[in-house]
Amino acid sequence: MTQVPAGTAVQTSAPAAPGRRGRRSVDVPTLVERAREGDPRSVARLISLVEDASPALREVAAALAPHTGSAQVLGLTGSPGVGKSTTTTALVRALRQAGKRVGVLAVDPSSPFSGGALLGDRVRMQDHAGDGGVFIRSMASRGHLGGLSWATPQALRVLDAAGCDVVLIETVGVGQSELEIASLADTTLVLVAPGMGDGIQAAKAGILEVADVFVVNKADRDGADQTVRDLRYMQSLGGRHDLTGRWRPPICRTVAARDTDNGIDDVLAKIEEHRLWLESSGEGERRRTARAAREIEAIALAELRTRIGDLRDGAALDALAARVVAGETDPYSAADELLARL
Amino acid sequence: MTQVPAGTAVQTSAPAAPGRRGRRSVDVPTLVERAREGDPRSVARLISLVEDASPALREVAAALAPHTGSAQVLGLTGSPGVGKSTTTTALVRALRQAGKRVGVLAVDPSSPFSGGALLGDRVRMQDHAGDGGVFIRSMASRGHLGGLSWATPQALRVLDAAGCDVVLIETVGVGQSELEIASLADTTLVLVAPGMGDGIQAAKAGILEVADVFVVNKADRDGADQTVRDLRYMQSLGGRHDLTGRWRPPICRTVAARDTDNGIDDVLAKIEEHRLWLESSGEGERRRTARAAREIEAIALAELRTRIGDLRDGAALDALAARVVAGETDPYSAADELLARL
Repeated sequence: MTQVPAGTAVQTSAPAAPGRRGRRSVDVPTLVERAREGDPRSVARLISLVEDASPALREVAAALAPHTGSAQVLGLTGSPGVGKSTTTTALVRALRQAGKRVGVLAVDPSSPFSGGALLGDRVRMQDHAGDGGVFIRSMASRGHLGGLSWATPQALRVLDAAGCDVVLIETVGVGQSELEIASLADTTLVLVAPGMGDGIQAAKAGILEVADVFVVNKADRDGADQTVRDLRYMQSLGGRHDLTGRWRPPICRTVAARDTDNGIDDVLAKIEEHRLWLESSGEGERRRTARAAREIEAIALAELRTRIGDLRDGAALDALAARVVAGETDPYSAADELLARL
Repeated sequence: MTQVPAGTAVQTSAPAAPGRRGRRSVDVPTLVERAREGDPRSVARLISLVEDASPALREVAAALAPHTGSAQVLGLTGSPGVGKSTTTTALVRALRQAGKRVGVLAVDPSSPFSGGALLGDRVRMQDHAGDGGVFIRSMASRGHLGGLSWATPQALRVLDAAGCDVVLIETVGVGQSELEIASLADTTLVLVAPGMGDGIQAAKAGILEVADVFVVNKADRDGADQTVRDLRYMQSLGGRHDLTGRWRPPICRTVAARDTDNGIDDVLAKIEEHRLWLESSGEGERRRTARAAREIEAIALAELRTRIGDLRDGAALDALAARVVAGETDPYSAADELLARL
C-alpha cells in the first residue's frame, strides 16, 4: 500500500517562482505523467493542488480531463460503529487480489483512515503496507456533520486519471454526506449492523434513497436476521428502487474483520451486477452526466460568488447598499447593477 | 389593531389581465399610495406580492424604495416558552400609547401570531383589535427550524414604506434564525426566562453575539436573580460587545402578561438608549448598509441561479456535462463556458 502523503513538496522541473499563494510554480504535465505511471508522490501533489484551490487548479483539471472517466466509483457509507473501516480494508484486499488498482478517499472523521485529516497525522492501512497498487487519501471533512469536502470530486478525478480501476469513497452516514456520496458514486454501499434498528428507522428515507447495495455487517451477531428483515420490510414499503425495471438493492451479509472477510466476495459480485445494470439500463451514463453537471454548476456558482466578493472588496457593493439605504434605489435594481458589472 | 389578511385579492384599477402566474395585473403606484395612507388591505396586498415573488415584485420594490429607511427595526427572539408573544403584545401596547405606528412580522411557528402561517388561519391580537395603528403579519417560516422566510426583508420594506415608526420582527431563537433576525434588526432583544439556565449555556455563543438588550421575562419567578447573574457572568467572559467603546447589552427584568406589563417601560428606555448609541457611534448606519449589501448580494445570487437553471432547461449544461464525461473538457473550463453564456 502507498499512503499518499498530504501536502508533500515535490521538487518539480519548473523554476521555483512564488505563486499567488506563495507556492512554487508547478510543472503540471510532468506531474500528471508521473501520476499516470503510478508515482504516489505525484498523485499526492496533484490532490494537494486541487485541495488547496491552488493557482494551478485549472491547469491540473484541464490536464487530467483526457485521462478520466474509466474508474469505477464506489461509495461506502453507514452510521458510526457499523464497521466501515474493516469493510473498506476487506474490499481493498479483495480488489487487489483481483489485480485492480484501487484508490481510497476517506472523508470520515471517525475513521482511522481519515482521522489524520483532523489530527494532522495519517494512520496507515497496515494490511496494504508496501502495496504500490493502492492509493489512500484522507480528505478533510467539511465540518462535524461529515459533509464531503468540495475538493472530493477533484481528488476523485486525480485518482481516476492516475489509472485507478476502482475508487472507493468512504464517509460516515450523517447529515448530508450520504446524499453527497451517492451523487458522486456509481454504486453506493450502505452498511448497517445488527442491533441498530432504531438507527435504520431514523435513517430510513435517506438510506433507501441512496443504497444500491445493502451490507449487513457483523452478520455473526444476534439480530442480524432481524436487521435483514427490517431492511426487506423497508424496501417493501416502496422507494424509487422498487419500481418495475429499476434496480432493487440486494442485501449482503458480511463479517469483515482483520483476519476474516466472510461475505466480501458476495458484495463484490453484487457490485458487478450493479455495474452491468448501470451499463445496460443507461443509468450509469445518466449518473455520470448528472454528476458532471452538478460539478460544473457548483464551480460556476463559486466563481460568481468570488466575483461578487471582488466587487465587495472594490466597494461597488457597498456603494450600491448605501444608495438602497438612502432610498435612491431598491435592492432588485441594485442587484441588476451588480450583475451588470460581473 | 388591524390584522393584515393574507393574500387578499384587492380589486385594482388596472384592467384584469392574466399575469405570468395567472394573477391579475396590479396598479402598484396606487397600492403604495394607499398603503402609505394606512390602508391595511393595500399593505396586505403588497406583502403578498413580495411574498409570492409575483411578477410585480420588482415594480413593488422600486415603488417602495423612496419611502423606506425611516422605520426602527426591533428583533425579538428567545427559546420557546420564554414569553415572546406576551412581550410582543406588551411592547406593541406601550408603543401605541406613545403614539407610534407599529408593524409586527411574526416568523415564529410556535407563536399565536404566526401560527396562522402554518395553520391557514390567523389568530388576532385581541388587545389591539380595532386599532388602525398596528399592522400584524405572520410570515411562513422557512422550515421547522424557524429560519426567516427570504421574503421577510421585503415585507419589512413594505411596513417601513407604509409609515410604521417601529417594525417588530418576532422569531423563535432556534437554528439560524437568531442570527438572521440580528442581521435585519437595528436593535435585537433576546428574551430569557428563569429556570432555563441550561438553555442559556447552550445558546451562549449565539445570544451573546446577537443581543443588544437582554430581557429576563417572568422575573417574578424563582431563579430570576440567578438568571441575571448567569447573563452577567457570560458577559464577563467576553464577547464582541465587551470591548471598550462598544455597546454593553443591558439586562432588563419584565413580567409581561395580559394584564401586567411590569418592566416594559424599562425595556423601551433601553431600546431608546441603544438607538441613540447606534446613531452617535455610526454603528446604525453601518448595520443598515451591511443589511442592504447582504440583501443585494442574495438577490443577485438567486438571479444567477435562476439563469443557470434556465441554461439547464436549455440543455446547455447537459451538453457541457456530456463533454466532461467524455474527457473532452474539464469541469472548470465547462464552468467558464457556462458563465460566458449568462
